[in-house]
Amino acid sequence: MRNLCMKVSYDGTHYNGFQTQPDGRTIQDQLEKAIKMLSDEDVKIIASGRTDAGVHAYGQVFNFLTQSHIPVERWPMALNTRLPDDIVVREAIEVPELFHARYSAKQKTYRYTVNANQFIDVFQRHTQFHHHGKLNIEAMQRAIKHFIGTYDFTSFASRRSTKTSHIRTLFDAYMVVDKSMCRSSTYDQGVIHTYVTGSGFLQHMVRIMMGTLLEVGEGKKSPDDITAIIAAEDRSKAGPTAVSKGLILWDVEYNDFPKKTF
Amino acid sequence: MRNLCMKVSYDGTHYNGFQTQPDGRTIQDQLEKAIKMLSDEDVKIIASGRTDAGVHAYGQVFNFLTQSHIPVERWPMALNTRLPDDIVVREAIEVPELFHARYSAKQKTYRYTVNANQFIDVFQRHTQFHHHGKLNIEAMQRAIKHFIGTYDFTSFASRRSTKTSHIRTLFDAYMVVDKSMCRSSTYDQGVIHTYVTGSGFLQHMVRIMMGTLLEVGEGKKSPDDITAIIAAEDRSKAGPTAVSKGLILWDVEYNDFPKKTF
Repeated sequence: MRNLCMKVSYDGTHYNGFQTQPDGRTIQDQLEKAIKMLSDEDVKIIASGRTDAGVHAYGQVFNFLTQSHIPVERWPMALNTRLPDDIVVREAIEVPELFHARYSAKQKTYRYTVNANQFIDVFQRHTQFHHHGKLNIEAMQRAIKHFIGTYDFTSFASRRSTKTSHIRTLFDAYMVVDKSMCRSSTYDQGVIHTYVTGSGFLQHMVRIMMGTLLEVGEGKKSPDDITAIIAAEDRSKAGPTAVSKGLILWDVEYNDFPKKTF
Repeated sequence: MRNLCMKVSYDGTHYNGFQTQPDGRTIQDQLEKAIKMLSDEDVKIIASGRTDAGVHAYGQVFNFLTQSHIPVERWPMALNTRLPDDIVVREAIEVPELFHARYSAKQKTYRYTVNANQFIDVFQRHTQFHHHGKLNIEAMQRAIKHFIGTYDFTSFASRRSTKTSHIRTLFDAYMVVDKSMCRSSTYDQGVIHTYVTGSGFLQHMVRIMMGTLLEVGEGKKSPDDITAIIAAEDRSKAGPTAVSKGLILWDVEYNDFPKKTF
């Protein structure tokens, strides 16, 4: 048996999330169906983690065991011709038998995009949350730094979370403001890409962080409130869960293989 | 009667082009329907020109006469709430009675995007033509300069063109290569945005120019062949018509109003 590991991008707009569900069209279903078409094997793929309905991925990672002799470098193209056009396998490598896309993951990066220009960017409408009205971006940038570190993130977890521990470490969190589509300085504040990198993330964690940061941007909370909200370990203290479409699982990193090739 | 002029973005993926057709869903139909909902008038809008099925616009311009007293600055938001989410009105100004979005246009800019990376960018798949295999981008950049000037562009017009003259002036034509999504220098050549600005364009003109430039990139034609292809005034001498989805009507400019506000 060979253990193959792949990196996949998908537009989650038309899917019920990553993980197989009895009632729905999911990314996992599509990938397993394409593998079945290619190798005639009923495989169960292991992803770095699930993504919710409407959430996208640029660099989701999954692995599976196969008896196929198809050379690893031929898999991406071969799968892509068998996948719908909103799912694209970008990389494939052979990994040690014990490699596990979830357990072996060292860190994950998510990107959340807020369009703070006056009008929706029609070409990016499925991957940007369009925010109406002025945002204090500088305050948001100060606020986000308070998330970096090791904390109990209960305040930023879905109430439905079943995890035994809510302690996670955020290694980095920052915002990049793209002003290339701004026309008027009065109404257009740019497109804000927020990147967060951590050891792991709780359900809805990035979206609740964003909902809270947007309240900071709107002046409803101050940047320094973040520390108290984390300390409260109480979901009701944080802001709302930002809509799923702005969120992209950007990358998953592993110790095992060199970053530049995967 | 007031003459209102508006700038509109649309994702043309799900439309049968701009212009009203008996059998189809078009951008013009959607805009006129939204105006009817807002002002209860049956207006006929005048656009800077039609766009074909599957072609997009970032800055299409149209105007129409109205008896409505709604302040001009309120029109974009008011129309956007009545339009599908793939059409967004971005600007509105009141213009002199004689202003005509087609006749008054001074110049138009189109953008055509070729993704020359190994894999499709799943988030831009409706606005990029994905090219498989190596392209000589430097040769394409030399070739495109031969289009600048005043020529008979019959070689680059659809055979169905009914225009009495095929003479047009191209003021500018250039390529910008975006390497931000490149991962491997071996397989990823970047995303090539081609901008062409001219006095006017014939049916399929930008797409035939792109199809020809791609043949230059593939080594099937040399950059200097462009001059002879133009001189031939023969459609069969040029390359194929590139697919519609890579094309965006980027901007339309007018003498009448200041660029910075419109």
